[in-house]
Formats: sequence, structure tokens, C-alpha cells
Amino acid sequence: MRCTDIRKAIANWSKKGGLQPGTITHVGEQRSERVRMSVIRYDEKDFVEKRINSVEDSLPLRDKPSVTWLDIDGVHQPEIIEQVGKHFNVHPLVLEDIANTGQRPKIEDYEDYIFIVLRMLRFDEEENETKSEQVSVILGANFVISFQEKERDVFDPIRERLRNSKGRIRKMGADFLAYSLIDAIIDNYFIVLERLGETIEEIEDSLVSNPTAARLQKIHDLRREMIFLRKSVWPLREVISRLERSESPLINEATCAYFRDVYDHAIQVMDAVETFRDMLSGMLDIYLSSVSNRMNEIMKVLTVITTIFIPLTYIAGVYGMNFRYMPELNQTWTYPAILALMFVLAMFMLFFFRRRKWI
Amino acid sequence: MRCTDIRKAIANWSKKGGLQPGTITHVGEQRSERVRMSVIRYDEKDFVEKRINSVEDSLPLRDKPSVTWLDIDGVHQPEIIEQVGKHFNVHPLVLEDIANTGQRPKIEDYEDYIFIVLRMLRFDEEENETKSEQVSVILGANFVISFQEKERDVFDPIRERLRNSKGRIRKMGADFLAYSLIDAIIDNYFIVLERLGETIEEIEDSLVSNPTAARLQKIHDLRREMIFLRKSVWPLREVISRLERSESPLINEATCAYFRDVYDHAIQVMDAVETFRDMLSGMLDIYLSSVSNRMNEIMKVLTVITTIFIPLTYIAGVYGMNFRYMPELNQTWTYPAILALMFVLAMFMLFFFRRRKWI
Amino acid sequence: MRCTDIRKAIANWSKKGGLQPGTITHVGEQRSERVRMSVIRYDEKDFVEKRINSVEDSLPLRDKPSVTWLDIDGVHQPEIIEQVGKHFNVHPLVLEDIANTGQRPKIEDYEDYIFIVLRMLRFDEEENETKSEQVSVILGANFVISFQEKERDVFDPIRERLRNSKGRIRKMGADFLAYSLIDAIIDNYFIVLERLGETIEEIEDSLVSNPTAARLQKIHDLRREMIFLRKSVWPLREVISRLERSESPLINEATCAYFRDVYDHAIQVMDAVETFRDMLSGMLDIYLSSVSNRMNEIMKVLTVITTIFIPLTYIAGVYGMNFRYMPELNQTWTYPAILALMFVLAMFMLFFFRRRKWI
Amino acid sequence: MRCTDIRKAIANWSKKGGLQPGTITHVGEQRSERVRMSVIRYDEKDFVEKRINSVEDSLPLRDKPSVTWLDIDGVHQPEIIEQVGKHFNVHPLVLEDIANTGQRPKIEDYEDYIFIVLRMLRFDEEENETKSEQVSVILGANFVISFQEKERDVFDPIRERLRNSKGRIRKMGADFLAYSLIDAIIDNYFIVLERLGETIEEIEDSLVSNPTAARLQKIHDLRREMIFLRKSVWPLREVISRLERSESPLINEATCAYFRDVYDHAIQVMDAVETFRDMLSGMLDIYLSSVSNRMNEIMKVLTVITTIFIPLTYIAGVYGMNFRYMPELNQTWTYPAILALMFVLAMFMLFFFRRRKWI
Amino acid sequence: MRCTDIRKAIANWSKKGGLQPGTITHVGEQRSERVRMSVIRYDEKDFVEKRINSVEDSLPLRDKPSVTWLDIDGVHQPEIIEQVGKHFNVHPLVLEDIANTGQRPKIEDYEDYIFIVLRMLRFDEEENETKSEQVSVILGANFVISFQEKERDVFDPIRERLRNSKGRIRKMGADFLAYSLIDAIIDNYFIVLERLGETIEEIEDSLVSNPTAARLQKIHDLRREMIFLRKSVWPLREVISRLERSESPLINEATCAYFRDVYDHAIQVMDAVETFRDMLSGMLDIYLSSVSNRMNEIMKVLTVITTIFIPLTYIAGVYGMNFRYMPELNQTWTYPAILALMFVLAMFMLFFFRRRKWI
Repeated sequence: MRCTDIRKAIANWSKKGGLQPGTITHVGEQRSERVRMSVIRYDEKDFVEKRINSVEDSLPLRDKPSVTWLDIDGVHQPEIIEQVGKHFNVHPLVLEDIANTGQRPKIEDYEDYIFIVLRMLRFDEEENETKSEQVSVILGANFVISFQEKERDVFDPIRERLRNSKGRIRKMGADFLAYSLIDAIIDNYFIVLERLGETIEEIEDSLVSNPTAARLQKIHDLRREMIFLRKSVWPLREVISRLERSESPLINEATCAYFRDVYDHAIQVMDAVETFRDMLSGMLDIYLSSVSNRMNEIMKVLTVITTIFIPLTYIAGVYGMNFRYMPELNQTWTYPAILALMFVLAMFMLFFFRRRKWI
Repeated sequence: MRCTDIRKAIANWSKKGGLQPGTITHVGEQRSERVRMSVIRYDEKDFVEKRINSVEDSLPLRDKPSVTWLDIDGVHQPEIIEQVGKHFNVHPLVLEDIANTGQRPKIEDYEDYIFIVLRMLRFDEEENETKSEQVSVILGANFVISFQEKERDVFDPIRERLRNSKGRIRKMGADFLAYSLIDAIIDNYFIVLERLGETIEEIEDSLVSNPTAARLQKIHDLRREMIFLRKSVWPLREVISRLERSESPLINEATCAYFRDVYDHAIQVMDAVETFRDMLSGMLDIYLSSVSNRMNEIMKVLTVITTIFIPLTYIAGVYGMNFRYMPELNQTWTYPAILALMFVLAMFMLFFFRRRKWI
Repeated sequence: MRCTDIRKAIANWSKKGGLQPGTITHVGEQRSERVRMSVIRYDEKDFVEKRINSVEDSLPLRDKPSVTWLDIDGVHQPEIIEQVGKHFNVHPLVLEDIANTGQRPKIEDYEDYIFIVLRMLRFDEEENETKSEQVSVILGANFVISFQEKERDVFDPIRERLRNSKGRIRKMGADFLAYSLIDAIIDNYFIVLERLGETIEEIEDSLVSNPTAARLQKIHDLRREMIFLRKSVWPLREVISRLERSESPLINEATCAYFRDVYDHAIQVMDAVETFRDMLSGMLDIYLSSVSNRMNEIMKVLTVITTIFIPLTYIAGVYGMNFRYMPELNQTWTYPAILALMFVLAMFMLFFFRRRKWI
Repeated sequence: MRCTDIRKAIANWSKKGGLQPGTITHVGEQRSERVRMSVIRYDEKDFVEKRINSVEDSLPLRDKPSVTWLDIDGVHQPEIIEQVGKHFNVHPLVLEDIANTGQRPKIEDYEDYIFIVLRMLRFDEEENETKSEQVSVILGANFVISFQEKERDVFDPIRERLRNSKGRIRKMGADFLAYSLIDAIIDNYFIVLERLGETIEEIEDSLVSNPTAARLQKIHDLRREMIFLRKSVWPLREVISRLERSESPLINEATCAYFRDVYDHAIQVMDAVETFRDMLSGMLDIYLSSVSNRMNEIMKVLTVITTIFIPLTYIAGVYGMNFRYMPELNQTWTYPAILALMFVLAMFMLFFFRRRKWI
Repeated sequence: MRCTDIRKAIANWSKKGGLQPGTITHVGEQRSERVRMSVIRYDEKDFVEKRINSVEDSLPLRDKPSVTWLDIDGVHQPEIIEQVGKHFNVHPLVLEDIANTGQRPKIEDYEDYIFIVLRMLRFDEEENETKSEQVSVILGANFVISFQEKERDVFDPIRERLRNSKGRIRKMGADFLAYSLIDAIIDNYFIVLERLGETIEEIEDSLVSNPTAARLQKIHDLRREMIFLRKSVWPLREVISRLERSESPLINEATCAYFRDVYDHAIQVMDAVETFRDMLSGMLDIYLSSVSNRMNEIMKVLTVITTIFIPLTYIAGVYGMNFRYMPELNQTWTYPAILALMFVLAMFMLFFFRRRKWI
């Protein structure tokens, strides 16, 4: 999460300013590919999955009593979002929030449907930083509409389970599908955290031995990632908690236990983020101590060398003076005596430094 | 936001002290130009806009069932505010708060009308800092009265939409107009934030390579701006939240979703401000580390040079002594031998420093 | 606010320990002058003001339906407080709190009357610090009794307004008088803040150029003043908020708007105090950076001078040795060559330092 | 409060682990003297006080309608606590808490009686630190049982007032006696605080002039005392607040005002502790600045002396070289000229340092 | 608690991601030994204890009215957990949480039973750090099922008390058994804290005299342990508090007092952890001051030696110059005079340093 990213996000928002509320404008990164859409319809017995080209194609499926999942992978074509608004009777402000990625995780109850915004994380190996993407979910009585920014997602295991009729997912309603999507997103956070944990461990191992400025920068970058993660997870907790305690008829009581479970996972993500933050703070302290220790080390060497040789040099200087009457100079024994004196002085100094534990 | 500005604000307040409550005195910057006033009246079909010279001129429009917006650009003429008080039956303390700019964002429900104080931000390119201006809004059953300190404002897109009958604004009541004003003000915050973000990025890029005292001062100035922004946005959140949850008959239920939307925007502003604060704190740490690293660098150079040459100088000093009996001095090979010894000593020192990674 | 002051306050409290509760003992600074008392009685038409010598003198006025203000300037004569207790039927613990100055701002509802403790601030120009004084207010159905420690107060504008029948004060009840007293005290806070703001500005201007230890001490003193102010204003906020939301029949609904207004003022004082605290923290950081920068400056000079001359001195030392066979010494060109070498070496060093931006 | 003390407390608790709950084991310091017990019975007219040897001796007094205070000075004889449990029908967990000193202040309502744990402080002049002792109070309908660890206590003024029938204590019930005990304990806190305040003032006075490591240690010790005090007072606040708001029939409404008063005192203790904490933090900052200033001072002296003499020594070195052809050496005027040059150089350096405000 | 441990925990979670919810997979450390199971059945008169091999073996005991404790020491055999789920009708998410160790302490009320997760601590003497293990408790109407990760536990005193019919445990229901388990776990925390306290004391004793980098690392490790402990105890507090205030018919009112008691113990653990954290922070400050003091010490020695000898060396250098006309050199008295001058200069310097308290 560079400063540039934040500026871009703010720039998007400020570009939007002046538009009337409810305008559907995609303000994220520009994309040119067509939006991919697919629809899955299932109940305990049947399962239909097909790729569709327009929202209208999904309507015949929606009107049956089984659960319909309309999965839209791209929010850069406002006309598609408008169609969803028209056919599913969605509030214009919801449509605006779907298009205008950069929302915080939130939940809004519009009686006929519940609108949920989540953030999906991904560790970008190339740029070596965490990227986030907005996932919007509309949960109706017998349908779920999910929007994401790009095609690649974390929902494949859910599709697999639906196809294979594994677990209880086919027996339960749309609310369980919404739960499964949220669960998949949060489980993915652990993968991102694991990747960050590895980086932290690498830095920790080399910090005391070699406290370079680059490592300091890296620690600061990681702290920023943690703040960024925290900002994604914190409101998510609130979202799930409100789903769990919801009195909306769209949420069955049987699903509540599952929301409570996913809430626990969110808490665990928070815990891990907090622990990493504490670790990084500790590493910062250790970095600063290491730098200060090295300074100390340097000062000691300077002091030891200087304070040993400066008095000796002075003595040598004295006997280098050119006074005519310096009786010592003419004795045979004085030169070795002075050398011996210098040696004793140096030894005494060394002993003094040793006692003070400087060498 | 300089210290001077705060002192001025406090000085205004302390000047006011001693006046009886409810006295309408403009205590902000003195202005001499006349207050500009205009009135807009609209419903789904009709639209009237005219410039007026006295509050009385707006009364015929007010008494019709459509929505009337009385827009007053200047609070330095107490008589105008008094007229508003008289004709619209507004509490004296509200009038005092309108005139006495420097209020925190707040909302007060007086049954017949709701009084809202907001702060509009503007990045002053000349003084290179954020300026803030008080916008007071009185929301009645079928009218909105807005006061601002100067003429230049952020409401032009709203006027444009009213004139062109774009969007749903013409179909909705006075509460939607009030919402639109608040929305315009908050959207403008993103523009200010973008400008500040640019400055932060500039500093960040040059911080490690060149940590000057001027950059430190700049970081501190930016942190202060963030505190100042935070103080404007934080109570604003509360204001909007209370509007959203309001049970006043002046707020229609249909408008609530819009207030919730603008509340989300306020949260996003807060988030950006917090992120910038975290960044600036991190930059402060990096600044200090950079300064400390440079100190380290200087110490290393000093130590390397000193500890190499001081022993050598001592040796030279010894053989510069004038003792008569120094047998080494008379051998042909001793001079090159001593030079060689000095060379070896220097090499040894360099090797020692290299191993400690000082050079 | 010196340490001594706090110790004195605690000493007063600890002296009091062991006395039975409800004992009226003045534990503040000893004073010898007589307590000055005056009584003001007013309604919309009449106004009576007189100086009195004993509490009894005020009783005939009290028993009329108009509002009576008994103003007692001094709490060092327990007998006066006891008389108030007797004639106005006040709880012994209230009387104890009036005498025992050093209370935090608080409000206590005794049904027949409301007891309010406030702190009045004053900037003592001689000792160059903020002093605080306890003001106790007893608000009854048709009377207000106010106690302060010294004669000099901030209530003169209120007396003036009562005498001249200006504003709505003469038309309203005892609760409005209590409000006016609180309002006057809070308005006075702005004057104290303005004075402190000036000092902060003075220090700020000279901090970077000349970071002396005295300025550091001054910053710490100002921070302490801010903590002290915060401790006075914070509970005051609570007091006013409880007055505003009070369901006591002693508070008329019409006065509530005024309490809300004075509450806003208290919030503004808090805001200014917090802003000053942030500023002082920033100034502390700047002070420390300035000191560290100066250290850096000193180290640079030391290093530049030392590392230039030490190698040169070594070379001079070498050719000062007394070896018999030093062939260089006998050439005519060697002396100027060595001088030239030294010059080149010094230039090289200077170039090296220039490149590192040390000089 | 040394680390050792905390370890001892924890060791006591961990020794207790494994015992079944409700076991009465004294885990504090071992004592050998017999537990002293006395009983006081009083109503408005009568007063009986006697020393007793077993809990049974107090029973005849208890069963009369007047108030009985059973005062037990020592908790190291489990049999006594067991007798109290048996005769007064006290829950085993309460008895365990009485014996197992080291409880936090707390209040538990067992309908028939209220159990209160308090901490009494004492400044130990010999060890120069604050000691704390557990006081347990059982408040019944017409009796109070108080337990303390040692004989010396702060309740003598209460006994005196009971004996002399001073104040309203003899007219009121057992709840007022409990209030009086709590009040006495809190009033004693001010004495401890005063003693700590003196120490803080002593350190403050000498900190800037002489920042020794011993003073730093002392500041840290005092901060720890403050944390320790805070931990005693903070839950105490809660205890008193719950007593004040209690709906137990054991607390008369008339006593509530007194609990509110003692609550104010607890807040004042908290305030003083917080103020001292702030002061000690400020002193820590000043200590660090002083140390850093001294370092600066030392560096300046080193730099001034070194940079003045090193160039001069170099010049002397040059003219100490033994080149045969050094024409300057043979002129009569060169020696004084060089001395003059050296003088000018030194003056220039001194001027340079003066301008930089180093000397 | 090393970084590696956290990474492992996160890795476990991220491995789990993609599995359908309610899957029972043990994700902790792999173990190969068989899970040990035992069942204890008791009422006031009878006591049966036996080792069992499958969950079915416990069923005949369960269906009697007395209390049954099924004690399972190992969660790495999913089939056992599944059997528990089947025979005791436990929700799949509960089974998942039992197997998937690494949960935070929590409580979930499923009407028929209450599910409690706790963390048991153990100080690992070999690795010199605190280890934690998950204990899951299912409390039913007349049974308790407890799961732990390894065989070694802290419940032996409870088994002993059950066998010997000591205390009230045999007289009370399943909720009292659950309480006893929680109490045993928390009592064990004190043992861990005592061990950590010893380490802290050891470091404290040697910190000022010898501030090595290893000690700094140790302080940071201990701080991390404290954060880790805090994370275990904090939610535990909440768990117990909810048990105490529970309105579930599974908790008898008589047991509530015991839960309140164990709640107090949890608070005491928190207090000790906080105190240790404060101490470690203080020790960090002292470490940094010690390092800075040593630096100061070193600088003083360097400065004293250098500033004494550098001027002397300069004087010697001057009289080592080879000018032909240096009249001083030819006087008999100049050599001793210069030596005397040097001595006086050195004495003056020493006096100067003494006055500045450097030596």
C-alpha cells in the first residue's frame, strides 16, 4: 500500500464529487475486457450453471423457488449494474456503491434485500504487496448477486461444493450461500497473513546482525500493510456481527451459528494482525537499539585507540623538542627507559579499558 | 493552520466574552463588501431563481408549498441575520452562532426547524495551507436557509442540477436539498485531501536521501493540518449520524438512505485522514533514523581516519625523538622497514574495519 | 501550576483527614480580611442591590417571589457558611465542600436546590502562571447563592446587565442567573487561553533557531498548564451537560437552550486546550530534532577538521624522523613536492566532504 | 513496590492453586502474634467497648437492636474467620477472600450482608516505599465486622468519635459506620500522596542540575508506585459508586450523600495520582534532555579544543621536518611569523565558534 | 512465543481454508499416540471411574441422573469427536472448533449444552517459553465433556477431590464441575506468571550494571509473552463473566458465586500481566538510559584525554620545529620552564573537568 495508491483512491472520490448522488460511475482502474457473468441455480436435487451475456438471461431462473446465484466479475460496465438495478429493484445508491469501488466493508438492510460490501485481499507477488478488491453481495429471498472487480477469485471451492452437492450447502437457502462467500473471503485472509508472516520472519532473523536502512524501510512498509489490513478487517467484524444478530427474515436462524463461526475467524484475523503489529513495533525498537549499539561500538574503538596513542605521541613530542639543554637526551639508558614507560602506559590504559568492559 | 490562527479564533471568543448571550456580533475576519443574497424556489415543475437585497424579498416565495432556498453569502452584516431571525422565527442563540463563526460542526433540533453548522474546507494555494469556513444551514418544513462566510462556494453543481431539473433533486423536499449541501461540502474534502496527499508524496520521495530540517518542519505542519481536518470531520460524522437517525418530521424516510450514504463518505474522509496521520508518523520515524544514520556515517569516517593515522603518527613521533643513543636510527634498512611496518599496520586496520563492515 | 501547589492541595486534604464528615473548615490559603457579602433582588420591574453584613440581612428579600442573588466573596469564615446552611436549609456536606476549596467541578441535585461547583481561572501575570479559584453556586427555586474565594471576579458584566435591565436576564428566573454565572466563568477561560497562546507563539518562533534548555522547561510548564486546564474543563462539561438534560423543576425548559450554548463553549475550550497540547508535543519533537541537528553540526566540523589534518600531520611526522639514511631529505625538490602532496590530499578530502554534503 | 513483592503475591496465589475453593488459608506474610479482637456496641444513648478473645463473646451484643462493630486485627488464624462464618452465616468464598489477602477492592452483595474489600495504604519510612494492606468489611443489618492484617490502623479517630458521641455517627446505623471506615481509609491516601509528593519535589529540584542514573531509577520507582496506587484506587471508585447507587435495604438513603462525598474524595485521589504520573513523565523527558544536553556540552569542548590545536600542530609538524632544503627555516623572521600565523588561526577559530554559539 | 509459532498457527488456518464449514480436521501438531479417554460418574454417595476405549462405553453412565464427566485427552482422532457429536447431539461447528485447536477462549450457548473454549498454559522449561493448549468443555444438564490436546493436565486435584469426596464438589451438579475445571486452569496461570516473574527479576538485577543486547532481546521476548498471555486471559474474563450472568437453566444460582470468585482470579491474572508489562516497559527505558549513560562515559574519557594532551603535544611540536633562530632553545632554563608550563596547563584542564563533574 503505497502513498500513490491512497492518492489514487482519493483522486477517484474527488473526481466523483459534483456528480449527483446515485450516478453509476466506475471510478477504479480502467479495464477494457468484457464483464463475465454466470448464473448458478440449485436446490437439494437440481443444479444448473451457465454463462450468460446479459442480466435478463438470469431472470427465468430467478423466478423459481430454488436458490439463484448471479455472479458478475467486473463492475466497469455501468449498463450491467443498471440492469441489475432495474430487474432486481435495487436502490440507486446501492448501484452507485457497487460501481464506485473503494467502499469500506458495510452492511445495509433494504428489507427486500441486504446489501453487503466486503474486501477481498490478494498478495501480489510481483509488486510484493497486498492488493484489495471490492466484493459486493446482494442477498435476496431466493437469490444472491455477487460483484467483484476482476475474474480471478476465491469462490471456486464453493462452486465445486455446489456442483458436487457436498456438505449442507445445497440443502440450505440463499443466506447460507452468502455466508459461504464471506467465509471464503476471510479464509483467504489467512493465506495473505501467512505470506506477510514469512516476510516478517525473514527480516527478524537478520535484523540484529545487520540493521540496514532498507530493512527499516521494509519494517515501515509492513506496518503500513498491517494498518491497511486492519482497516479492511475491523469493519468486516461489524458487518458479520450485524448479520449474526440480524432480525431480517432473509437470515434463517440455522445460519446464525455459521455467521458466529465466521465472526470468530474474523476475530482471529484481527488477533494475528495485532500480533504482527506488536512484533513490528518490537522490531523497530530492536533496530534502533542495534543502530545505537553499533554507534557505541564505533565510539569505543575510537576512544580506545585515541586515548592510548595520544599520551604516547605527546611523550615522543617532548623528546623531539630541540632545546639545547635536555640532559635526558644524552644518557644511554633514557631511550629504552622512555620506550618502556610508553609500554607501561599503554598496558595501564588497556587494563583500564578492560576493567570498564570496553574491550 | 498556524498558531496565529488559533490565537485569533480564541481572541475572537474572548472579545465576545462579557456580551450578553444571544448578541449577534460577527467576530471573524472583518469584511467590507455587501452581503450577496439569492433565493431559489422550485418544485417538480417550476423553478425560480433571483438575487435579492433584503430578507423580506424572499418571503412571498417562502409561503408557497414548493421548496425555497435562501442563500446568504456573508455573515458580517448583523442586520440581515436579525431579519432572518424575525421573519423565520429563529432562536436568538442560533442567530448568534451563525454570526459568530468558529463553531464546531453541530446539529440542533428546534422542532420547527433544524439548525446545522458545517465547516467547508479550501486549500489556499498562496499560503499553502487549508482554510476553513463556517456554513450554517437552517432546514425548515419547506425552506432551507444557508449562510456562508464568503461568496466562493462548492454549491454550484447543486444550483446547476436544480436549474436543469437533473436527478431526483427537484422531486424531493427541503431535507433533500439540505442533504445535497452537506454532500457537496464533504465531496469537497476529498479535493483538499488529494492536494495534501500530493505534498506528502513529494516529501516522502526525498526524505531518506535528504533529511533536511525544513522537511521535518513540513511534516509537522502536515500533521497539524491532519489534526485540524480531523477536528472538522469528527463532529460532522456525529451531525450526519443524528440526521440519519432523526425522528424529526422534517426528515423524510426516503432521504435517510442518502444521509447514510453521505455518512459513509464522512467515514472515508476520516479513514484517509487517519491513514495520512499514520504515514506522517512513519515518515517522522524515518526522518529520525535517517539523521541518526548520517551521524553514524560521520562517526565511522572520523573513527577510520583517526584510528589509522594516530598509531602511525606515534611511530613517526618516536623516531623523531632526539635521544643521542637510538641505535635503530643509524642502520640503512631501518627507515624502509619502519615505512613498511606503517603500511602493514594501516592495512591491518583497514582489514579490521572492512570485517566490521564500517567501510 | 507547580509541584508545590499540588502538594499544598494534598496537604490540605490530608490535614482534613480525621475530622468528622460535614465539618466546615476552610483549608485553602489563610486570609484575614472580612468576607464581603452583597445581595441583589430583581424581577422584570424592580431591582434592589445592597451590601450586607450577615446572612440574616438577606432573608427578608429572599422570601419575596422575585429572584434573589446572595453573593459571598470569601469562604474563610465558617460561621457565615453555617448561617447559610441554617437559613437556607443546606446539607452539611455541601457546606463542607464550599469551605474546603479544591473540589473538582461537580453538580449535586438535592431536590430543593442544586449545588454546583465550578473553577474560575485567572492568569497571574506576576508568577506567570494560571491560578484557579473555586466558585460554589447554590441554585434554589427563587434564589442563587454564589461563593468565591477572593473579591475580584468575572461577574461584573452580569451585575451591570441586571442594573441596566439589559437583555432578557431580568425577565427570567434564578436558573437563568445561574446560567449567566457559568457562562461568565467559561467566557473568561478564553482570555486565559489567549494569554497562554501568546506564550506558545513566542516560544515557537524562537525554537528552531535557538533551542535552549530554558525553552524546553517552558514547554514542559505549558504542557502542565494544559493538563491542569483540561482537568478543570473536562468535569465542567459534564456539569453543564447534566444541567441541560436535568429534569429538576428548578430548571425551566427555556433555559435549556442556553445551557446547550454554554456547553458548546466548554467544548470549544476543550478543543483549544487539545490543540495547544498537540502543538506543544510537536514543539517538543522539534526541540529534540534541533538539539540533535546541532550535535550533528558539531560532529561534522570535528570530523572535517580532524580527518583533513591528521593524515597531513602524519606525513610531517614521517619526515621529522631522525633516521640517518632518508634519501628523500637530501633532494632539493622533495620539500615543495611534499607540500604539494599535502595540498592535494587536503583538496581531495574537501571534495569528498563536499560530495557527501557535509560542508 | 518492588518486583519481589509482586512475585511474592503471585507465589501466594500459585501456592493456593489446587486447594478446593472456599478453603480458608492465610497466604500473606506469616505472623505469630495472637489476633486482637474488640467489639463496640452503640446507639444514640449507650456505648459499650470491650476486648474479646473469641467471636462467641460478641454474640450477646450483636443480638440487640443497636449497632455492633466487631473489629478483628489479624487474618492469620483461620479458626477465627471460620467462627465468624459460622455465627454470622457468611458464605465460604467470602471467608476465603478475607484470609487470602491480596484481593482487589471489590463489593459483593449477599442480600443479608454486603462484603467489601478495601486496601489501606501506609508509607513505610524504613523501606522508603508504599505498603498496602487488605481491609475486609462485612456490613449487616445492625453490625459491621472489619478485618485487617495488622494492628496499627487508621480507625482511631472513628473510635474516638464513637466514644465521645461527637458528630452524627452515634445517631446513624451500621451503614454509616461502614461509610466512616471507608472515609478514614481514603483520607489516609492523602497522607501517603503528600509523602510521595515531597519526594517528587526533591527530585524535580535537582534534576536539571545533576541528572544522575540514581535519580532516573528513583523516577521509575515513583512511576511504579503511581501505577500501584492507581490499581488500588481505581476499583475502589467502582466499589463506592456501587454502594452509593445500591438498592440494598442495608443502605439508608440518608447515607447515600455521604457515599457520594467519599466518592468525590476517591476521584480527587485519582486526580492527584494522574497529576503525579504526568509530572513524572515530564521529569523523565527533562532527564533525557539534560543527559543529551551534557553530551552536547562535552562534544562542544572536544570539538573546540581539537579543531583549534590540530591545525596548529600540523604547522609545527611541517617545520619539524628534516628536509635539507627548507629555505624558510634559515630566515630570522620566519619563527615569529609562524607563531603569529598560529595565533591568528586560533583567533579565527575562536571567532568562528563564538559565532556559532558553541562557546 | 516465536514468530514461527504464529506463522504455524496461521498456516494451519490457511490450510483449512477451502474446506467446507463443519469439517472436523485436526490442524495442530501431528500426534501418533492413541487418544486416552476416561469417564467419571458421581453423586453425593457413589463414585465410578473407568478408562474407556470408545465414546459408546460412556453412554450407559450418562443416562443416569448423577453427574458424568467424559475426559478426552487428545483431539487428533476425528472419529472420536464425531462419535461425541453423534451421541451427545452436538452442533458440527462445535466439533470443528474442538478439533481445530487455536481458538480464542469463547462461550457459546446451544440451549441443550454450553460450549466453552479455554486455553491452558504451561511454561516449557526446555524451550524457555510459555506454551498454550486448547481445552474445550461441553457442559450439559448432567454431564461435562472435556477435551485437551495432550495427556498432561492440571485437573488431577479435581479428580482427587472427587475420589475422596472432599469439599462440596460431590454434592453439586455438572455446572460446579465445569467451574472446577476453569478454576484449575486459571490457578495454573499463577504458576506460569511466577516463573516469568523470576526471569524478569533476574534481568532487572543485572540491567543497569551490564546492559547487553542479549538482555534487550530477552526483555522484548518477555513483552511478547505478556501480550500472548493477555490475549489468552482477556477473552477468558468475558467467558467467565457471561457464565456468571448466564440465564441458562444449566447454571444453578448457587454456582454463580463461584464463577464470580473465579472471575476475580482472572482479573488478578490480568493485573499481574499488566504490572509485568509496565515493569518491562520501565526496564526498556532503563536499558536505553544505561546505554546512553555508557556512551556519555566513553565520550567523557575521550574528551578528557584528548583535550589535555592535544595542547601539550602542540607545544612540544612548536619546540620541535627546526627554525634556525629560535632563541628560547638556547637557554638552559627554557626546557624545565616549558615542562612546568605543560604541567600547569594539564592541572588547569583537570581542574576545569573536575568543576564540570566530568571526572
